[in-house]
Amino acid sequence: MAIIAIDMMGSDFGCEELAKSVKQYLSESTDKILAFGDKTRLESLFDGLDRVTIVETSDVIPMEIKPLDFLRRKDSSLYKALSAVKDQKADCVVTAGSTGGAIIGSTFLLRNIPGVTRAGICAPFPTRIKDKACVILDIGANNVNTPEDLYTFAKLGRIYSQEVLKVSNPKTYLLSNGVEEGKGTEEIVQAYNLLKERSFPGFEGNCEARNVLDGSHDIIITSGFTGNVFLKATEGVASMMNQMIKDAFKHSLFTKIGYLFARSGFKLIKDTMDYRKYGGSILLGINGVVVKAHGNSNAYAFYNAIKVAKKMVDSNIVKKITEAFYVE
Amino acid sequence: MAIIAIDMMGSDFGCEELAKSVKQYLSESTDKILAFGDKTRLESLFDGLDRVTIVETSDVIPMEIKPLDFLRRKDSSLYKALSAVKDQKADCVVTAGSTGGAIIGSTFLLRNIPGVTRAGICAPFPTRIKDKACVILDIGANNVNTPEDLYTFAKLGRIYSQEVLKVSNPKTYLLSNGVEEGKGTEEIVQAYNLLKERSFPGFEGNCEARNVLDGSHDIIITSGFTGNVFLKATEGVASMMNQMIKDAFKHSLFTKIGYLFARSGFKLIKDTMDYRKYGGSILLGINGVVVKAHGNSNAYAFYNAIKVAKKMVDSNIVKKITEAFYVE
Repeated sequence: MAIIAIDMMGSDFGCEELAKSVKQYLSESTDKILAFGDKTRLESLFDGLDRVTIVETSDVIPMEIKPLDFLRRKDSSLYKALSAVKDQKADCVVTAGSTGGAIIGSTFLLRNIPGVTRAGICAPFPTRIKDKACVILDIGANNVNTPEDLYTFAKLGRIYSQEVLKVSNPKTYLLSNGVEEGKGTEEIVQAYNLLKERSFPGFEGNCEARNVLDGSHDIIITSGFTGNVFLKATEGVASMMNQMIKDAFKHSLFTKIGYLFARSGFKLIKDTMDYRKYGGSILLGINGVVVKAHGNSNAYAFYNAIKVAKKMVDSNIVKKITEAFYVE
Repeated sequence: MAIIAIDMMGSDFGCEELAKSVKQYLSESTDKILAFGDKTRLESLFDGLDRVTIVETSDVIPMEIKPLDFLRRKDSSLYKALSAVKDQKADCVVTAGSTGGAIIGSTFLLRNIPGVTRAGICAPFPTRIKDKACVILDIGANNVNTPEDLYTFAKLGRIYSQEVLKVSNPKTYLLSNGVEEGKGTEEIVQAYNLLKERSFPGFEGNCEARNVLDGSHDIIITSGFTGNVFLKATEGVASMMNQMIKDAFKHSLFTKIGYLFARSGFKLIKDTMDYRKYGGSILLGINGVVVKAHGNSNAYAFYNAIKVAKKMVDSNIVKKITEAFYVE
């Protein structure tokens, strides 16, 4: 049985949407929920649910926040939720709030696991192959990363892929501007050498951004700035093309009729590309399980984010990362 | 009347495909062509065309080439085509061959325009708005760039946008991991400050990769490594989704019938997203006009690449860049 701390206040859709996810999750598990947020609203949402404990908070961390400001806002839902993990009152945190706040809070309150030079945000991406995710880190916890940081990300990504996604022999690549050895920035070239010299298991060399999502890559290592550009470029094109598909079917009476016939095929695209099924991104390398759902997560996405957190708790990932970085 | 040097040997589809483009182009203009490549093959392709002069070459630059190796291969089609511009026997070069070769050759043979710290590759991207391109540079001539390089790219991009694409008041953005001032790598932050301090016309601040192609951005400035990741990420997702659309229509008899009704709508997507209409990318900042078509350009794409080169010659862009960098 796990105790899951939920920041009820960060979502673009309000705590009503998140409450739906929590209720669905509870109906399928025996876990307990600590719900952080506005007491009056949460009481009306969770009325009579005995496995939900409401913790009153009076503040919400805004999307953009500086480290010192975060530390002053001790009454915020995110600060209190993270503190619950720190104080061992909860096993994990799920939030749809500020990414910056989640990183700052995790780093200050939970701390990096000893030996982890930098924690990273790891995001599972949908690929061409249905239900096969490719995990990419870092997608924005950092700006520039040293070669040792990139090596750390490779270790973190591998443990996540094996222990949580249950990929037995994941293939790891460095994101670069060409597949050949020697391509990329100085950091990439040096990270390549580190991974090769230390015989990193499953290291397959560089990969180019155009092949990342073809379904043959399990783990992609990148510095935070580049990862963030990659994430947003793929989001941008995918959402542009989705809109174009909608427009194409609305083009004329004929195309509308076409939709009636073709929609079963297009449902497959929607299912394959739906990042909501992956729940959110994960902070890897810190002393605790923190899952960051997208700010515009609907109930389905947030429900999946809770499931990811639970899987991470069950797989004992923090302990496994601690051991992996201790023995080295 | 322009004299256009064409590297006939670099295309994935062979010189037969490129010859189609040349013939179409000649049928619509009074320009002359210098065709560099295998004499026997080219003679049979251009038999009787009096505005085509064939220049025999015995070597082809491979896709991956080191600077010193390029300089030794003086009998290659690309080396000779670039030399023709250097020796003022041609006004511009169009090649579908090695990008690295085109950069090395242009830099060594044609040289940077005085004052240009770094030349960049500028690529026009299709956007959500039909026939509205967004130009992005650098997309891979460099790895990491200094803030001054990024400022140079902004100047080059603005001249290209105004003089060749005829955008009267182009909006320029820095590609970063957030729109707020202060976001991004150290280089981005410093480039932001330079553009702001020097009141760069049309500078609109940072932009995120997800908004680049929404049709409201004219020029995007980025270091070569990041630009290359952006380029390939968008290519990758677009081609993945195109394949998925095809698969969706092939899914069943119903979806196939759907295609018959809906195809007019989907033709619009194809037209809007077709990068082939933009012909290729452009080397900006060197003493000459060099257009690099995609290696897998079909006749239509290569024809458009020739038209881009001609437009650049007509707009006198090299002279305008020279003046812009001289007066500063």
